[in-house]
Amino acid sequence: MSFNTFGHMFRVTTFGESHGVAIGCVVDGCPPLIPLTVEEIQRDLDRRKPGQSRFTTQRQEPDAVKILSGVMAHPETGVQVTTGTPIALLIENTDQRSKDYSEIKDKFRPGHADLTYEAKYGLRDYRGGGRSSARETATRVAAGAIARKVLPEVKVRGALVQIGPHKIDRQKWDWDEIARNPFNCPDKDKAAFFESYLDGIRKSGSSIGAVIEVVAEGVPPGLGAPIYAKLDSDLAAAMMTINAVKGVEIGAGFAAAELTGEENADEMRSGNNGTRFLSNNAGGILGGISTGQPIVVRFAVKPTSSILTPRQTVDRKGADTDILTKGRHDPCVGIRAVPVGEAMMACVLADHFLRDRGQIGR
Amino acid sequence: MSFNTFGHMFRVTTFGESHGVAIGCVVDGCPPLIPLTVEEIQRDLDRRKPGQSRFTTQRQEPDAVKILSGVMAHPETGVQVTTGTPIALLIENTDQRSKDYSEIKDKFRPGHADLTYEAKYGLRDYRGGGRSSARETATRVAAGAIARKVLPEVKVRGALVQIGPHKIDRQKWDWDEIARNPFNCPDKDKAAFFESYLDGIRKSGSSIGAVIEVVAEGVPPGLGAPIYAKLDSDLAAAMMTINAVKGVEIGAGFAAAELTGEENADEMRSGNNGTRFLSNNAGGILGGISTGQPIVVRFAVKPTSSILTPRQTVDRKGADTDILTKGRHDPCVGIRAVPVGEAMMACVLADHFLRDRGQIGR
Amino acid sequence: MSFNTFGHMFRVTTFGESHGVAIGCVVDGCPPLIPLTVEEIQRDLDRRKPGQSRFTTQRQEPDAVKILSGVMAHPETGVQVTTGTPIALLIENTDQRSKDYSEIKDKFRPGHADLTYEAKYGLRDYRGGGRSSARETATRVAAGAIARKVLPEVKVRGALVQIGPHKIDRQKWDWDEIARNPFNCPDKDKAAFFESYLDGIRKSGSSIGAVIEVVAEGVPPGLGAPIYAKLDSDLAAAMMTINAVKGVEIGAGFAAAELTGEENADEMRSGNNGTRFLSNNAGGILGGISTGQPIVVRFAVKPTSSILTPRQTVDRKGADTDILTKGRHDPCVGIRAVPVGEAMMACVLADHFLRDRGQIGR
Amino acid sequence: MSFNTFGHMFRVTTFGESHGVAIGCVVDGCPPLIPLTVEEIQRDLDRRKPGQSRFTTQRQEPDAVKILSGVMAHPETGVQVTTGTPIALLIENTDQRSKDYSEIKDKFRPGHADLTYEAKYGLRDYRGGGRSSARETATRVAAGAIARKVLPEVKVRGALVQIGPHKIDRQKWDWDEIARNPFNCPDKDKAAFFESYLDGIRKSGSSIGAVIEVVAEGVPPGLGAPIYAKLDSDLAAAMMTINAVKGVEIGAGFAAAELTGEENADEMRSGNNGTRFLSNNAGGILGGISTGQPIVVRFAVKPTSSILTPRQTVDRKGADTDILTKGRHDPCVGIRAVPVGEAMMACVLADHFLRDRGQIGR
Repeated sequence: MSFNTFGHMFRVTTFGESHGVAIGCVVDGCPPLIPLTVEEIQRDLDRRKPGQSRFTTQRQEPDAVKILSGVMAHPETGVQVTTGTPIALLIENTDQRSKDYSEIKDKFRPGHADLTYEAKYGLRDYRGGGRSSARETATRVAAGAIARKVLPEVKVRGALVQIGPHKIDRQKWDWDEIARNPFNCPDKDKAAFFESYLDGIRKSGSSIGAVIEVVAEGVPPGLGAPIYAKLDSDLAAAMMTINAVKGVEIGAGFAAAELTGEENADEMRSGNNGTRFLSNNAGGILGGISTGQPIVVRFAVKPTSSILTPRQTVDRKGADTDILTKGRHDPCVGIRAVPVGEAMMACVLADHFLRDRGQIGR
Repeated sequence: MSFNTFGHMFRVTTFGESHGVAIGCVVDGCPPLIPLTVEEIQRDLDRRKPGQSRFTTQRQEPDAVKILSGVMAHPETGVQVTTGTPIALLIENTDQRSKDYSEIKDKFRPGHADLTYEAKYGLRDYRGGGRSSARETATRVAAGAIARKVLPEVKVRGALVQIGPHKIDRQKWDWDEIARNPFNCPDKDKAAFFESYLDGIRKSGSSIGAVIEVVAEGVPPGLGAPIYAKLDSDLAAAMMTINAVKGVEIGAGFAAAELTGEENADEMRSGNNGTRFLSNNAGGILGGISTGQPIVVRFAVKPTSSILTPRQTVDRKGADTDILTKGRHDPCVGIRAVPVGEAMMACVLADHFLRDRGQIGR
Repeated sequence: MSFNTFGHMFRVTTFGESHGVAIGCVVDGCPPLIPLTVEEIQRDLDRRKPGQSRFTTQRQEPDAVKILSGVMAHPETGVQVTTGTPIALLIENTDQRSKDYSEIKDKFRPGHADLTYEAKYGLRDYRGGGRSSARETATRVAAGAIARKVLPEVKVRGALVQIGPHKIDRQKWDWDEIARNPFNCPDKDKAAFFESYLDGIRKSGSSIGAVIEVVAEGVPPGLGAPIYAKLDSDLAAAMMTINAVKGVEIGAGFAAAELTGEENADEMRSGNNGTRFLSNNAGGILGGISTGQPIVVRFAVKPTSSILTPRQTVDRKGADTDILTKGRHDPCVGIRAVPVGEAMMACVLADHFLRDRGQIGR
Repeated sequence: MSFNTFGHMFRVTTFGESHGVAIGCVVDGCPPLIPLTVEEIQRDLDRRKPGQSRFTTQRQEPDAVKILSGVMAHPETGVQVTTGTPIALLIENTDQRSKDYSEIKDKFRPGHADLTYEAKYGLRDYRGGGRSSARETATRVAAGAIARKVLPEVKVRGALVQIGPHKIDRQKWDWDEIARNPFNCPDKDKAAFFESYLDGIRKSGSSIGAVIEVVAEGVPPGLGAPIYAKLDSDLAAAMMTINAVKGVEIGAGFAAAELTGEENADEMRSGNNGTRFLSNNAGGILGGISTGQPIVVRFAVKPTSSILTPRQTVDRKGADTDILTKGRHDPCVGIRAVPVGEAMMACVLADHFLRDRGQIGR
């Protein structure tokens, strides 16, 4: 991964600051002749869009995406298809309301990239977080929509499985519930609880962490590669690039540390369609290569650092001060991370699909 | 990351199978004029070497490393130094005892890469695990020894902090204990407990998981980069490439999901040497860039899949069968993962140090 | 180099088709705090712009570039500077006049990428050449303007030194002449000759090849690296990516094949500012590393394949036919390649400057 | 291309100095199940080996290659095949005769990398040229032998077509002559001339340049990619990394600058096996993508800089001095560059074959 590019054969380069002219991405290496419309990309973007409930930032932007290149009407069928050349996508920033940045311009929010951007570059774009804003993730979701079209037989879905200390009941998991509540939560009862719980967090000007799970079904065996291109390694890297993510696990994850070899072994039986597994502690990956089982990844999202409670900090001169961040913010930034996690999963799988096809020639 | 290369400016390419002629690595991009002796590399290798206690595999190999290129006596001082050209390291395989592989040659161990290598490549080197063997990690440790010399002011140390459900008492953390027990455990009392606990695991032919923590002190602020070259993303990728690792977390990690914004914020005060932090939930990284605090990474290692208890599986023809793995194995492969985790941390930091110096010009 | 990205630390990704919505590029890895205005980029673009004389295509486009990201007013000085994050540049396509493409839509121009794009991708954007259009080079010139700012002490200049069989007289070389004729020609007399010569070519609907020379002065010694990152290798690759280029040479180039070791050796004497060379057959590069002498690169540009004389070809069905290309075209596409060659030189040097600084730490 | 790695999917990393312990390479990304023996690699190496006639350096080394990894007997057929994991090859240095290096240890040979390695790294391995020695090219030839096995239907052959000012007669081109003279020359009569011509060069302690042509037949259409992964760009880069190469051209090359559009156009007619071309000025590449015609690349090799005639130079302290290089040297280093050029062609084609298969899915 380069600074602002990820992927090897399916490569995504993103650009743009929160309050600049526009954000966007360039997707390179996409196979040609894949049907692709701007509506398909917009649909995924709309799922990530802020301001859809009182539980996400009230920034109001249409996030309307434009395709600048790499797609044309097929000369014979007239269907919009990819051409094999780079697909550039653009989302203009429209809600750059003039705002008082005096509080954060010269102070560093604890737990925020303010400090480190300044340490690295000698300056930072303090307007809305600049490049470190979660707004950047919109471009990944757009790229992910293209990645899904590369692998039409793979279904990638994400769910919020924990807010603060409150985990969902996995027995009640219902994928259909995801779209029925503002939390992307698959447990109907826990979603009802989150409503009041998050109202409390929001009203107190606080914020809270969360855990997201992303599952990919229909992934063929053989994707990924030893040793440094392991599928789980690339997935971990991809999820860890999402803002505020502090941990990633595959399958049983950290719980695997507590298991014996007997418990952890996913036993196998012959099945009608190849090998059948009796469990999936591996999360669909062994030795860095997909097994054919569902790929299961979870990641932890820390609470947003922009809160109403004053915190001790220093200013750009190094002097002690306090800071309190007003403005539009997410009480639980993890909620909107669900489609972002899905997009990263889709992009990593598309990349490994092309790399595997290149080396092995399926 | 390419298939068998990691890093961008400090690049490590490894090769070799467990029971082939040799394993080794090529380190490219190392700065010139760094003093480097074969003994310094051997010292780190000796810490990883198997067979040092009854708790690791009894394979007996000297793991003697040779420097093939990239180092010469300085024409004026006579000191062995790097030349700026690729440093190739070679470790010959000496303990390839002829062995009965009939059990695993045609059957897939549950939880092992046997199945997926075969699915991907159409064949696999069944002798000792081939490329998927933990033996490959010796080459990373060798590369890590060079990375440490690139950053002499940074101290990278690792510790085993959990075996099975048993966590160390962090109040009792003593780095000096690490070398005094066969577990790399910083808690003296827990180490004593692990001795009897692992004896039980070992004698029953079972295995157990573990959690490792790696800490880097003295890392300057500013290493890492948005968005897809975040330091934590590269660390997560690096740790996840180690055999059997199923989860990675930075700083508070998954626990951050349970924190409020107030709790998670690492408050700051002015200090004598720049900013002083009142806590380190961030694990030394904000926005993907180092803060100057210690970098803290933890990873979960699953139990080894080679166990004496029979497990249900399928053979290469797809027929149902059972498997039971005899031979020399680690009851807790996590123990030997400690120096490997350190090596990966050192390599990632060296790489980001050079990349940062390139872009910023410090 | 990836499909549409070049460079390693100073990385340029370009996108866009000739008759699509827009073309553009993303420059990643640029150091922060470099003063940069849109006018500086526009100035270089204007030099490449078509329609400035009757000797280049009559396509009329302002080629107005916009900076979308990566530049902001410095919070203290107010000067527009780079932020260290990706700089995205956009040039909208405005002169997509509706046109009759029936001639080239279903036929392949001999010597043109029509055939191979179709062979590779199964379709091609026949409108104005799509991605294979020389219009793409505008984005490189824009990126090159940024690269120049990374190396303010290096002067990169290009000149047309041959059209058809007619070479300039090197004794008459005057850099100031470049801007005084429409050919970027440093030989005043030859420029006068080219005027009538090219009028003949143009009126007959033919086209002609050319040779361009690009010189970089002020390059410090030590840029480049063995073995596969040789400065001359990266320069050759860079020039060879320019449309219609069929050959590249460094210093004495192909003429070096005719020299003896005595003739070719650039002898050295001690000078006031380091070593002084008595000749520059090496073109400023030895062993892939810059010597401190001017870097000298020449490349050959073939005649454009869009001509008025009918040529034998096949159509998309594979049937024999003839083709004749009407429309706006360059009689000598080499003329406009001069600023493009300069841009590629500047980008390669900026990339190697950052890579060298990373590894060596100057 | 990284410093010491080239290729994207078929990646070759080389290491080693002329007078160090060993030289070698790691080939990563090679498809599995390709039959490969050490003898096949040795055969290509033997063609490059020095000391086979009085016209190449008298260094005597068996250049015996060992396969360290990535190849095993197929469990069913017993045939040695690639496993899909990295193939490491090792060639030990045996002829490191102790020698008096006092002349070149502290002086810089004009036209040699002595000066620039020292400028870049602050030291250089003066023994036999260290990393800059032509000995490094043996590892490329070894890698190229593997690349050939990836593309068994492609025939890659090279020929020496010019020494000094003396070009072969293309009418007399006979590929069978190549193996019959010590110059890899396809023109029998010119080869006879070269014998006496080079004897003169050799006896006078001088050296002379040469031009090599490499042709690949049987390359399918569609390999290569716009814009920065053009096949000709990667070929130019690859050839330019060979020691002493100063120019590269494709097809008509520099002569294309003198052609009109009518002359340069390779006209097409329908043929029995797809399109038939009436000429091949393109050298088999249009728009950076292969046409199906033979790929034709030529490169110019300068005379070796190690000559017996004293030349003016400076020493490491910067003082004026003279230098005269005794010892075993090639009067025309271009002769041995023929198999090296073939190997680079084979590697670039294998890489593009895999990349194309990945993106397009043939």
